[in-house]
Amino acid sequence: MKIGIIGIGLIGGSLARDLKKVYAEAYITGIDTSEAHLETALKLGIIDAKGDESSLKDAEIIILSIPVDAAVNVLPGILDTVQDEALIIDAGSTKTLICATVKTHPKRRNFLACHPIAGTEFSGPSAAIEGLFEGKTNIICEVEKTAFKLQEKALEIFQKLGMRIRYMNPEAHDKHIAYVSHLSHISSFMLGKTVIEKEKNERDIFDMAGSGFESTVRLAKSSPAMWTPIFDQNKENVIETLEEYIQNLESFKQKLKEDDLEGLYKDMQDTNKIKEILKGIPLNKL
Amino acid sequence: MKIGIIGIGLIGGSLARDLKKVYAEAYITGIDTSEAHLETALKLGIIDAKGDESSLKDAEIIILSIPVDAAVNVLPGILDTVQDEALIIDAGSTKTLICATVKTHPKRRNFLACHPIAGTEFSGPSAAIEGLFEGKTNIICEVEKTAFKLQEKALEIFQKLGMRIRYMNPEAHDKHIAYVSHLSHISSFMLGKTVIEKEKNERDIFDMAGSGFESTVRLAKSSPAMWTPIFDQNKENVIETLEEYIQNLESFKQKLKEDDLEGLYKDMQDTNKIKEILKGIPLNKL
Repeated sequence: MKIGIIGIGLIGGSLARDLKKVYAEAYITGIDTSEAHLETALKLGIIDAKGDESSLKDAEIIILSIPVDAAVNVLPGILDTVQDEALIIDAGSTKTLICATVKTHPKRRNFLACHPIAGTEFSGPSAAIEGLFEGKTNIICEVEKTAFKLQEKALEIFQKLGMRIRYMNPEAHDKHIAYVSHLSHISSFMLGKTVIEKEKNERDIFDMAGSGFESTVRLAKSSPAMWTPIFDQNKENVIETLEEYIQNLESFKQKLKEDDLEGLYKDMQDTNKIKEILKGIPLNKL
Repeated sequence: MKIGIIGIGLIGGSLARDLKKVYAEAYITGIDTSEAHLETALKLGIIDAKGDESSLKDAEIIILSIPVDAAVNVLPGILDTVQDEALIIDAGSTKTLICATVKTHPKRRNFLACHPIAGTEFSGPSAAIEGLFEGKTNIICEVEKTAFKLQEKALEIFQKLGMRIRYMNPEAHDKHIAYVSHLSHISSFMLGKTVIEKEKNERDIFDMAGSGFESTVRLAKSSPAMWTPIFDQNKENVIETLEEYIQNLESFKQKLKEDDLEGLYKDMQDTNKIKEILKGIPLNKL
């Protein structure tokens, strides 16, 4: 089974590791703009060889795990060159633009639009781990536009990797993911920025930071090269979430200014239901 | 060694567990406004008996680990009743008001103002764990106002529990802790609120939430009873941090609106240095 992976980072590299484990016959070639990443991936045994246009032509499965701006740029050209039975899967955090980009492509049926929710704040092939996708949600968009045999092939892979599948249209995906993922990243980045700016002359102040701060700014370690195009492609939804978030913060500040302690208490108490939500209990049942 | 613990929650209960481990002769009485918490603490062996005013009179060491509004209310009365050699340690996340409250108390020298940075989003005696304070920072304020022998006694305890000690004046403590702790809690609570409000009719949407969202809203599970008085007592500092945070979020939104992708990239890249900061490398050396 010839597999081509474009972008040997956390997601592409982890997929490569899992595919090698579940398909003994997998032969994986890797393409990456970073020669250093390719060398690391080779040394770690994540890929079998460096890939090129000809290895993509031969590939039965192609994984596209690069920043979403690059993905949109290269996907049409990849579809042009692949064999008729090839399956191309992407892994981007935005789905509307990429689906629109290949909407009328003659080989649209070779592409499956996916978003495996498995990222962390780390990046690069050395961050790739086996089993990353076990129990994680994989959102598939416009499944009906992919050839039935290729859907089957993809689902077999996802099942072997232990993923839970959810189907959604690209617009709904981008709207909801703005709340449960993109906004978290901005809130974390701006928290880190605020604290760093304030404490830049206070070397030791971070000794005061506990595990709570560490957890809340964890996402501020994420890659700007990955996140800038995500925010750009999901601009309208992200701006809407930001406006609501800022309004809630303003309202909290106002209550504090006015000594409305009951109001603050209630805000926090109402939000405590996140405990149950994160345990997977549907919100409406609370 | 008779020890009285007022407030058998995460901090008080964990202290009780550690004190029992390092002082075989420790006899711990517990006081709590929640009868259920007291029963749990007894059943778990965290305390030896329920306490009362007379057990506080007998105690050699008293730990005050209750919400900061209650702590300020009860501390003067406790100081009134304790024996001359008793050491009273608090554990509150604000230090200015409590230090001011007992400033002129005849038994001020029996009190040591502390803030062990060891809290989590959990609360109550069942959240108490052994070893919680190992490697954690304990901030001591106005150490010079505590009797020398009692400072020594407290330091011996903190050392046995594995804590790192830092000395700071109450105003500096409250100012800096607003950035590295209080703001994180508000950013997390308001993130949770924003997402819950938006997705209240979408039962399944939280399937889309990954570990990033979970990490960023972790602190929104925290106790409103504990946090409302903290924000109240540290109102001015907290409002200042909130204003700076909101301004950074507004600026991010504006850059996104204006398609200033370079500006967004730079903001995130600059904030990535949080990686090194969290590793403990002083910011100014970067």
